[in-house]
Amino acid sequence: MSRWEPNARGRLEQAALDLFGERGFEHTTAAQIAERAGLTERTFFRHYADKREVLFGQAHALEQAFVDAFTDIPDTVAPADAMASALETVAARYFDPHRERVRKRHAVIMANTELRERELVKLASLSAALVAALRRRGIEEPAASLTAEVGIAVFKVGFGRWVGDTGERSLTDFFRESFAGLKAVTADP
Amino acid sequence: MSRWEPNARGRLEQAALDLFGERGFEHTTAAQIAERAGLTERTFFRHYADKREVLFGQAHALEQAFVDAFTDIPDTVAPADAMASALETVAARYFDPHRERVRKRHAVIMANTELRERELVKLASLSAALVAALRRRGIEEPAASLTAEVGIAVFKVGFGRWVGDTGERSLTDFFRESFAGLKAVTADP
Repeated sequence: MSRWEPNARGRLEQAALDLFGERGFEHTTAAQIAERAGLTERTFFRHYADKREVLFGQAHALEQAFVDAFTDIPDTVAPADAMASALETVAARYFDPHRERVRKRHAVIMANTELRERELVKLASLSAALVAALRRRGIEEPAASLTAEVGIAVFKVGFGRWVGDTGERSLTDFFRESFAGLKAVTADP
Repeated sequence: MSRWEPNARGRLEQAALDLFGERGFEHTTAAQIAERAGLTERTFFRHYADKREVLFGQAHALEQAFVDAFTDIPDTVAPADAMASALETVAARYFDPHRERVRKRHAVIMANTELRERELVKLASLSAALVAALRRRGIEEPAASLTAEVGIAVFKVGFGRWVGDTGERSLTDFFRESFAGLKAVTADP
């Protein structure tokens, strides 16, 4: 049972997203996910604590991706520009290459109240991580919190437009558009 | 039992906030709240469905307050300025006169994971209400969503600074400061 299963985690995730989409999250079991992936239930639980973790297990990695993106940006870059740059880096590395998977995941989450609430908690945690990353760049309060919230605003609006878009535009592009839109909205006439 | 109890709702809220603060939300019962308020448990349930509603029963009224504030602002006012004006109106009418009660409520919510999540849901619902109000002013997407998220950003940061402040500054003033700070952060150099 301990033999190596090639790409077990990815196969389980794919099977889970398919089943959640077909039957609903609440009507899918770990055993069914494992079966669909051609793996055992035991293998499932070696990779995920429960079926919810298939959807939210990468939340910490996302926060870390933002932290890493910030460390690559010189401290001389203005806070909001650094925020915009970090958003684009994360979009290009972690979202754009996985467009269909991200959209499937989003549809599953939107269909379930508990999962939507969990997603809000994830965003609040990301916001706190962004504040901490900006503070480490020497940005004072309230500028750090305001810049982080600008990042969350661009993330929410840009991501919402990207997942709802039927075309081929990248999330990177939607983030860029949303950031420009936010600047335009708040600019003095 | 149906006799009129003067200001029963206000007395129940005050008693609930006191008890939540003393014993924790999870260790307080509706019966204890009623007793502390000098009222019967039956009276409690005439005013509130459960103890959680004492904290969140006004969420819809808050959304309506924003909608009302927008209707008083001429459509010629730019979206972000209308958003800033609505925030100040709501702060002056619904928060500043109830400073101690709002702070007590906030402390109770921050001390409990489930209540913090409920507060995030409330903010997400407020965000959707703001988008709808801005759309009714003829503001297109994505400007409406971006303006609403700017409002939520100012609300979160301004409110967080106000409840954490030991001085006498008003929430209206913190909102004004946060909005100016957000404009400064996103302004071109």
